[in-house]
Amino acid sequence: MENIMTKMALDNWYSTVANTNKLLDTLTDDQLKGDVSPGRNSGTYLLGHLAAVHDRMIPLLGFGAQARPELNDVFLASPDKSGKEMPSLQELRNYWNDTNDKLDKHFKSMSPAQWFERHTSVSEEDFAEEPHRNKLNVLLSRTNHLALHYGQMVFLKSK
Amino acid sequence: MENIMTKMALDNWYSTVANTNKLLDTLTDDQLKGDVSPGRNSGTYLLGHLAAVHDRMIPLLGFGAQARPELNDVFLASPDKSGKEMPSLQELRNYWNDTNDKLDKHFKSMSPAQWFERHTSVSEEDFAEEPHRNKLNVLLSRTNHLALHYGQMVFLKSK
Repeated sequence: MENIMTKMALDNWYSTVANTNKLLDTLTDDQLKGDVSPGRNSGTYLLGHLAAVHDRMIPLLGFGAQARPELNDVFLASPDKSGKEMPSLQELRNYWNDTNDKLDKHFKSMSPAQWFERHTSVSEEDFAEEPHRNKLNVLLSRTNHLALHYGQMVFLKSK
Repeated sequence: MENIMTKMALDNWYSTVANTNKLLDTLTDDQLKGDVSPGRNSGTYLLGHLAAVHDRMIPLLGFGAQARPELNDVFLASPDKSGKEMPSLQELRNYWNDTNDKLDKHFKSMSPAQWFERHTSVSEEDFAEEPHRNKLNVLLSRTNHLALHYGQMVFLKSK
């Protein structure tokens, strides 16, 4: 069953990332700079937010160090329009693609059983009691998180 | 592993439904009648759409007949603002709650192994080749679908 479950979760992840990339490819930089709804987050902020959340999956899943921890302050700890300087949209597009490519490489090297190992923010003691706090659970919740913001970013397209 | 997997998927489902209910509880009918972003779907339409999608999970998961198939035309086959008559918001709120309550009752009666059985829109022959087309996969994809529209409906709240 492990291989079936990981296939389902990975299929969901990859299709949600693919939908997002397809959307990002159609959006001009001017469209991305706009707000998803009046007074709400800009596409720029959401792209940086999503890239930072995915970048943090690297240490959480035990793959290595986060590539751009200096961006957590602006995209995770601060809301949009905080006045904190954001990288250029081209830099954010590259950050997003590079991060997902890196995750993809690691995902492809994992056995189904490895997805059921604990992620790095749960202790061995807690994991013994709560075995659902594993790497696959991180993948499920981050897929949901991406779907939520994807649903907002579609509003950046012209009607 | 089956019990761990179903717990993860169900936890994700229940928390996404709970977030949506918490949002719906705070939204007045006037807020729900508004569009999530200018020119986009209304909260009314999205509530009906989500309820109809969840109602269709009942036959898809082999639990019985859909309660309100007559609503598929307005909420699944037609876009918002089609001119087709929608039920009142109170009726839609009840439809949403009743449908999720019914799903909850069925979910609680299922063994982990039953989640790995085929759903009713895949044939036995195809399922033999593609065992990931099971009931748990329906749950995962509908959780993502709900998260996507939840992310849009939060814009109905006043800032």
